[in-house]
Amino acid sequence: HFIQKRLFTVSHLSASASGFRINADRLAETLHHTCQWGAAHRYGDGPTETGMARLALSDDDAQVRRWFAEETQKLGCNLVVDQMGNMFANKRGSAPEPTPMIAMGSHLDTQPRGGRYDGILGVVAAVEVMRTLAENGHKTHHNVGIVNWTNEEGARFPKSMMASGVWAGKIPLEDAYSLPDIMDPSVTVKSELQRLGYIGDVACSSAGYPLKAHFELHIEQGPILEQTKRRIGVVQGGQGYRWFTITVTGRDAHTGTTPLNNRSDPLLAAAKMIASSNDVAKDLDALASTGVIKIPQNSSTNTIASQVTFTLDIRHPEDAILNEMQRRIFESFEAIAKKDGRGVQFNWTLDTDSPATKFDPNCIKMVAKAATDLLGEQGWQYITSGAGHDSINTSSQCPTTMIFVPCKDGVSHHPEEYCSPEDCAIGTQTLLESVLNYDKL
Amino acid sequence: HFIQKRLFTVSHLSASASGFRINADRLAETLHHTCQWGAAHRYGDGPTETGMARLALSDDDAQVRRWFAEETQKLGCNLVVDQMGNMFANKRGSAPEPTPMIAMGSHLDTQPRGGRYDGILGVVAAVEVMRTLAENGHKTHHNVGIVNWTNEEGARFPKSMMASGVWAGKIPLEDAYSLPDIMDPSVTVKSELQRLGYIGDVACSSAGYPLKAHFELHIEQGPILEQTKRRIGVVQGGQGYRWFTITVTGRDAHTGTTPLNNRSDPLLAAAKMIASSNDVAKDLDALASTGVIKIPQNSSTNTIASQVTFTLDIRHPEDAILNEMQRRIFESFEAIAKKDGRGVQFNWTLDTDSPATKFDPNCIKMVAKAATDLLGEQGWQYITSGAGHDSINTSSQCPTTMIFVPCKDGVSHHPEEYCSPEDCAIGTQTLLESVLNYDKL
Ligand SMILES: NC(=O)NCCC(=O)O
Ligand SMILES: NC(=O)NCCC(=O)O
Repeated sequence: HFIQKRLFTVSHLSASASGFRINADRLAETLHHTCQWGAAHRYGDGPTETGMARLALSDDDAQVRRWFAEETQKLGCNLVVDQMGNMFANKRGSAPEPTPMIAMGSHLDTQPRGGRYDGILGVVAAVEVMRTLAENGHKTHHNVGIVNWTNEEGARFPKSMMASGVWAGKIPLEDAYSLPDIMDPSVTVKSELQRLGYIGDVACSSAGYPLKAHFELHIEQGPILEQTKRRIGVVQGGQGYRWFTITVTGRDAHTGTTPLNNRSDPLLAAAKMIASSNDVAKDLDALASTGVIKIPQNSSTNTIASQVTFTLDIRHPEDAILNEMQRRIFESFEAIAKKDGRGVQFNWTLDTDSPATKFDPNCIKMVAKAATDLLGEQGWQYITSGAGHDSINTSSQCPTTMIFVPCKDGVSHHPEEYCSPEDCAIGTQTLLESVLNYDKL
Repeated sequence: HFIQKRLFTVSHLSASASGFRINADRLAETLHHTCQWGAAHRYGDGPTETGMARLALSDDDAQVRRWFAEETQKLGCNLVVDQMGNMFANKRGSAPEPTPMIAMGSHLDTQPRGGRYDGILGVVAAVEVMRTLAENGHKTHHNVGIVNWTNEEGARFPKSMMASGVWAGKIPLEDAYSLPDIMDPSVTVKSELQRLGYIGDVACSSAGYPLKAHFELHIEQGPILEQTKRRIGVVQGGQGYRWFTITVTGRDAHTGTTPLNNRSDPLLAAAKMIASSNDVAKDLDALASTGVIKIPQNSSTNTIASQVTFTLDIRHPEDAILNEMQRRIFESFEAIAKKDGRGVQFNWTLDTDSPATKFDPNCIKMVAKAATDLLGEQGWQYITSGAGHDSINTSSQCPTTMIFVPCKDGVSHHPEEYCSPEDCAIGTQTLLESVLNYDKL
C-alpha cells in the first residue's frame, strides 16, 4: 500500500477531525480505472502515463457515466438524470424529506488533449468520500451526494460549464440543446443526449433538482500552490471570462494574380486580430487567447480564403477590466477589418459569459477549518480560480466553494497534467471533512 | 447560333488566315458539358451559373478524363497515359514517324472553389481545334495533339503543376507519388492514381513522351486585358513563385490559468508570421499569401494549441527579389518564434519552386502573327503571367508559349470566374492559327 504509506508520511497531516480516513490506494486505483474510457496521448511507458480524450457525450463519456451510475447505486444512492444529462447521486441522511442534498460535484468529460485529473478527480474523490462514510457506517444529517455535470469543458460543444449553466438559469435549455459540435456541426448537444439516452425527466434547474450546498475538489491548473508549497487552496471565487466566436468574411482570389490592394483577405485580417487581442491583453495585464481557427474545408495554398472563424477567450478577475478589454479588442478588430483586411466583414457571438464570482463565506469557513485541522495553518492558503468551474454556476443558486490541490508545473489541458496520489488523497480527505463540517452546521 | 453570331459581330476580327473557322457554339456547349462533372457553388439561376470543385484524381476528375479519352479517340487520336496519369492524345501528321507532336496542353482539374475556365478552357479549346481540323479534312505536317496534365492546381495535393513538373524533370516521380491530400493525409497521389487506374506504362518525362512544342490557351486570371480592352495576351513568360509549408510547435496550456509569459503559443506566433510576411511583400512590391492554416482536430477554445501549420505562397517576376523576400520573411519568423511566441519551434518545407520563366521566341512569334491576322495590331498585347501554368514546366523541355484571354474582373480561383463565349472563341481560333503557323515553320 505504497500510496497510503506515502500519505501517512506527510508529517504535517494531522489525524482527521472526523476520525474517518479516506483510502488513498482505492482513490488512485478508481481514478485510473475510470480513465480506461477515453485514455489517449501516451507520453510514457507506465500504465497511467497517458492523457485523456473523453469529449462530452462521446461513447467514452457514456461508458464512464455507466460506471458512475453503477458505483453510486451500489453505495445506496438514488440516481436522478435531468434534461441535460446531469447525474445526481443522492444518499439519504436523517433529516426528514423533502430535503436537498449537500453535493460534491465536478465533471467526467475532458479536453480533447486533456489529462486524468481536471474534473475527474472531483467526481472520483466524491465517490471515495461516499465509500468512506459507508464503510464507517456514518449517517449524515442532511442528504449527501454527488453531481456529474455535463460538458463542463466546453471543448466539443463550445460553451463551458454548459449544463451547470442551464441548471443555474444562465443558459436557456434550448440554447444548450442546439449547440453544435465545434468540429462537426451536423451533431448537436440534443442529438447526442438522445443518441446516448441521457435526456432525463427532471427539469434542469435549481428548482427541478435543488442543492443544499456544492463543494468541488479540483486541481489548481495554475502554478501558485506548487510555488508556495501549500497542499490545499481554499477557493474564494473565480475570475471573470468571456468566450467569443469571430467570423471574418472576404473574397476568394488567386494568390498569384490578385494585387495585394485588390484583396479582401479574411485570413490576413484574422491573423492581425489575433495578434492585436494579445496586445490589448498584455496592456491590461489580462488574458486573451485564441485556441481554434478554422478555414473552409475547400481552401488551398493558391487561393485567398473566403471566410475564417476563430475563437477568443478573455479573462480578468475584475468585470470592469473585462468590459474595457472587450471594448478595446473589438475596436481594434473594426480598424483591422477596414484597413489591413481591405474591407473584410466580420461578426461575432458571445458564447460564454462568466462574471467574476465570490464563493459562500460559510462554505469557505468549513473548508478552511478542515484544511487547518488536517495540515495546520501553514499547510493551505486562500486562492482565486483562473479557470471556470461548475461551482461558479452553482454558487448563484446555493452556498458553494471549491478545494484546490497542486498540479505539476501548473499544467492542465495537456496530456501530462499530473497531481500526485498524495495530493489527490489530501484533497479528498479535505473534501470529506468539509462536507461533514457543513452537515453539522 | 447566338454565340457564333456574336463572334462574327466582333468587328475587328478578320477572316482567319487558315480559312478554317472554329465552331464557337460547339466550343461553349462542350465546355459546359464537361462541367457537369464537379459542378459546385451555384451563384445564379442559369444552367451554367455554378463554379467547380473537380479536385485532381477525384471521382469527378476520373469522369471528365473518361470523356476526354472517348472524344479524342473519336477524332482519330492515339491516347497514351504516362506514370503520372498525364493524358496525351496524338493525331498523326504527314511527317515520318517517330516524330513528336505539337501539343495543345492544359488541365481539367480545378480548385475546390474554382470556376469553369481555369485549365478547362485550354483542354476543351484544343478538342475544338482538333474537331475543326478534322471536319475540314486538314492533315498537318507534324503530329498534333492534346495533353491533359494531372494536378496542375496543387489544391488537393499541394504541389502546383505537379505532373508537368515530373515530366519536365523538376519533381522526382517518388516525391509526387508520395504527396498526401492536404485535407486527408491518409490518401496520396499514388494511391489515388492506383484507385482510378491512371498509372500508365509510359515514363513521365520528356524522353518518355517528347513534345515538339507546347501551346496553352488560358484565362488571364488578372485584370490587365480587361483594362486595356485587348482580346488576346501573347504570353512572354511567368513570374517566379515558391510555396512553403510552415509548422509551428508550442505547448498545450489552459487559457485561463497560464500567464501570457508562461506560454509557448504556436497560433499566436503563426498569426504574427502571417502578418509579417504580408508586410515584407508590401515592402518589396511583391506578393505573399497564406491560403491554408490548420490546427489539430483536437483543439478547443480554452486550450492553447500545441501545433499550427500554414502555407505561404510568395511571388515576384524577378528571382532575385524572390530570394530577398524569402530571406527577410524567414528572418522575421525566427524573431517572432523567439520573442512573441516565447520559444515556439518552427520548421518549413519548400513545396513548389517555380523560377521566373521566359517563353520561346518562335512560339511567341507564331501566336503574335495569329493574333495580328485575326485582330489587327491593336487587338492584342504582350503580357507576363502571374500564375503558374503547365507551360512553365514544358518550356524547359520544348518550345512553349501561352495565349491569354480576358476574364471578368480578373477573378479566378472563385466560383464566379467568367470568360465570355466570344473571348473563348477568339482564344480558340488564335490557338488553331498558332499551331498551324508553327506546323508550317
Ligand atoms: N476547469 C476548467 O478547465 N474548466 C473549463 C472552463 C474554463 O475554460 O475555465
Ligand atoms: N493557373 C493557375 O492558377 N495555376 C495554379 C498555380 C498557381 O498558383 O499559379
